Amino acid sequence: MESTQLRLARRPEGEPDDTTFSTTTETLPELQDGQVALAIRYLSLDPYMRGRLSTAKSYAAPVEIGDVMVGGTVGEVVESRFDGLEPGDFVLSYSGWQSAAVVDGSQVRRLDPSVAPVTTALGVLGMPGFTAYAGLLEIGKPQEGETVVVAAATGPVGSAVGQIANLKGARSVGIAGGPDKVRALTEEFGFDAALDHRSPDFRDQLAEATPDGIDVYFENVGGAVFDAVRRRLNTYARIPVCGLVASYNAVGQPEGPDRMPGLMGQVLSQSLTVRGFIQSEFQKSHGRDFVRDMGQWVADGRVRYREDVVDGLENAPAAFAGMLRGENFGKLVVRVGG
Amino acid sequence: MESTQLRLARRPEGEPDDTTFSTTTETLPELQDGQVALAIRYLSLDPYMRGRLSTAKSYAAPVEIGDVMVGGTVGEVVESRFDGLEPGDFVLSYSGWQSAAVVDGSQVRRLDPSVAPVTTALGVLGMPGFTAYAGLLEIGKPQEGETVVVAAATGPVGSAVGQIANLKGARSVGIAGGPDKVRALTEEFGFDAALDHRSPDFRDQLAEATPDGIDVYFENVGGAVFDAVRRRLNTYARIPVCGLVASYNAVGQPEGPDRMPGLMGQVLSQSLTVRGFIQSEFQKSHGRDFVRDMGQWVADGRVRYREDVVDGLENAPAAFAGMLRGENFGKLVVRVGG
Repeated sequence: MESTQLRLARRPEGEPDDTTFSTTTETLPELQDGQVALAIRYLSLDPYMRGRLSTAKSYAAPVEIGDVMVGGTVGEVVESRFDGLEPGDFVLSYSGWQSAAVVDGSQVRRLDPSVAPVTTALGVLGMPGFTAYAGLLEIGKPQEGETVVVAAATGPVGSAVGQIANLKGARSVGIAGGPDKVRALTEEFGFDAALDHRSPDFRDQLAEATPDGIDVYFENVGGAVFDAVRRRLNTYARIPVCGLVASYNAVGQPEGPDRMPGLMGQVLSQSLTVRGFIQSEFQKSHGRDFVRDMGQWVADGRVRYREDVVDGLENAPAAFAGMLRGENFGKLVVRVGG
Repeated sequence: MESTQLRLARRPEGEPDDTTFSTTTETLPELQDGQVALAIRYLSLDPYMRGRLSTAKSYAAPVEIGDVMVGGTVGEVVESRFDGLEPGDFVLSYSGWQSAAVVDGSQVRRLDPSVAPVTTALGVLGMPGFTAYAGLLEIGKPQEGETVVVAAATGPVGSAVGQIANLKGARSVGIAGGPDKVRALTEEFGFDAALDHRSPDFRDQLAEATPDGIDVYFENVGGAVFDAVRRRLNTYARIPVCGLVASYNAVGQPEGPDRMPGLMGQVLSQSLTVRGFIQSEFQKSHGRDFVRDMGQWVADGRVRYREDVVDGLENAPAAFAGMLRGENFGKLVVRVGG
């Protein structure tokens, strides 16, 4: 059995490009007892992957040059020497950017396609959905009548944040780029207000959409949006920080003025909470509740999701670079041929 | 009865100076039922007062030009029409920078000089002590064996933070300016390590004093100390922010590079908690525990304190300006003549 693999060829400075990954083909080893062979059907593309390309200090070790790029995957079992998994079963694994893999059966989770499409295990019912759920409920703590703002709001994290906020009785304000996405925010996802951060009068729109200020800003973007949001924060506002995609491709330190003292001054004068997190921190405490709540909400149609499916593993690098520029529309997933 | 009063004459740009306050004398009104007349014995000088001189957005309204400058005070009752207070009683009031005041008896708290010197109501057993207690325990949450760092560590907040950290089984590292203060940190207050932020090799000293990194940084200073501390923070570190005295006199936005994106990136990659607070937020939840715990610790000698007493209300402006430069050594209190 052969696997087509995308390996890290060169650490990008700035945006990843054609030279970042290289393609190899490898014959997979024979199955050992306890292992399964997977044909990868879907590969998840997520902003955190940009961090894995860099040696900058982070919560996870970087991918080494020459290694297969990491990533969440949905695979179909093609051969099994693991009790409880049979050919034809779909599983969630962390097999990375490749078309096939041999993995320990104990390291994968069986998916039931009759409950929800298997791709949801990479999105609304997977890591991005859990990021929204745990970060919003545990750090953001939205109260009835409060205002929750989130950017990249058609993405898998942002769209879940807005809908969970609404389910908790808060008012949701979504920010996205371009009229199609902005329309989807209110029409598909039920946001109470939707804004285009590319509008020249974005700041005025934000003020209008948040007449009572902002109580929770779910930060997954950074950059200019954060600057505008800061001015609307209420005393005791909470800012769960799960991503800063606007600066992931940044090279060097940005020019002044130095806004750090101003930010710290605001943290003090408004008793703000700024809290970074990685979803894995909350798996033990919130994982079970998430599976129950989110499974129910998705089944009921109270939480909706949108997927942006790209065909072909060979198109993963371009799709990934596009995602960092905000070009995807919904959870970005690669359908891996085979 | 006459009161000598210091009133805000001009909002300072940068450091407060001779032109900031003006002195007036006023005859106090006749006592009404329920009121007491106080001869002010001690005036507390605290960094937060710098914020009251400015119209910049803050958690409290600024002092208006022409108003008596605000502040916590210990007064002696000289006449009473309030049940439960008699001439000779000492009370805690918020009478500001003046020598005498007429106040509602219900607005003051009677102090028992036999339990602790009355000045402690302005320091270790008052607002600064409570700031340390609530911020450290509720936000910092020091665990046994963790490392807690605090600057301005001979001050009333910092010295309490270090000693409470030790009582909770954490390791305390204090930062101060100058050899006398640094010596007092270990000898008087029992810090496990003490550093001089003026040392040319301060960063190396900090690294040496925090071999296991920093779990809690109690932020009351800002500036260069925060920059050095940032590099030593551990994953999940907590930063209660109660003051930024290093920048209180700042004029305009500092030059670049812009450190804000770097700070937010660190918040994300290390899952940091940055939380501003004003002690009053925690009065209801922690006020009673504080009175019990801190009263006991001070009585037992497990929490020690140091006061820096300046004689004469007329010297308050210069002492206040000096405090903002870090010139006080312990809780700064003005003994008001009369």
